[in-house]
Amino acid sequence: MVPARLTVVTIGARDIASLREFYARLGWEQVIELDDLATFQLRGALLCLFPLDQLADDGRVEPASPHAGIAASLAINVDRRDEVDEALEGARTAGARVTKEPVDAEWGGRTAYFADPEDNYWEIAWVPPDSSMAAAIARATASA
Amino acid sequence: MVPARLTVVTIGARDIASLREFYARLGWEQVIELDDLATFQLRGALLCLFPLDQLADDGRVEPASPHAGIAASLAINVDRRDEVDEALEGARTAGARVTKEPVDAEWGGRTAYFADPEDNYWEIAWVPPDSSMAAAIARATASA
Repeated sequence: MVPARLTVVTIGARDIASLREFYARLGWEQVIELDDLATFQLRGALLCLFPLDQLADDGRVEPASPHAGIAASLAINVDRRDEVDEALEGARTAGARVTKEPVDAEWGGRTAYFADPEDNYWEIAWVPPDSSMAAAIARATASA
Repeated sequence: MVPARLTVVTIGARDIASLREFYARLGWEQVIELDDLATFQLRGALLCLFPLDQLADDGRVEPASPHAGIAASLAINVDRRDEVDEALEGARTAGARVTKEPVDAEWGGRTAYFADPEDNYWEIAWVPPDSSMAAAIARATASA
């Protein structure tokens, strides 16, 4: 058995200084701030930024080569449908590259996507409060 | 302002069936199980598996080309130092590729790394309970 947890997401940063500034511009609180580590206090999992070469060294693997395409996404779940639009505007103002303007999804929610300056992808999502996804998120996070 | 949350991590799966089986072998509970979506109930952020092409379509971006190197890591924080070793053995038994055997870190914790069958990287970490990282994790998750 492996404990069923996803507590920290660490992004391997090519330019940690500028990436740190981007996430700070989202209004996110930095709780650990070192030259080579930024940790942002989120609800759900924490976000860490760590230089890519150091991340690779730490994991005993090669660093990925730069690639602009999407391999995974990180989601910010919001409480109201129209908060998707508000949050996306906040990200755009901070310098995010918007790849998908807010759209009502066929499954009943509303979503948008943006990329940070190093092409890490975020989804802003509202899911109906009576959905199994909403219940699972509430169980996972401190919002339960 | 963008809500300070990281509630769901979605991995773009090349073979969702086999990747789903891998995470199920970790002992993780699947709360949403569709042909093209697997959602695992974790503490912190949820883990979703979604076909890579569909994730790219959803985000209006190109899918990343396959790459074995590390770009980011997902962490499983455990409660006791020796639980790092136990959890890593659990992952290995499930078919994980271990890239770093458990090591005591100079900052006082203990960590190990493994990759899933599609080269998504996980860190198993114990951090001292009196650390700012431990406090931030407790605030972020339902364990507070």
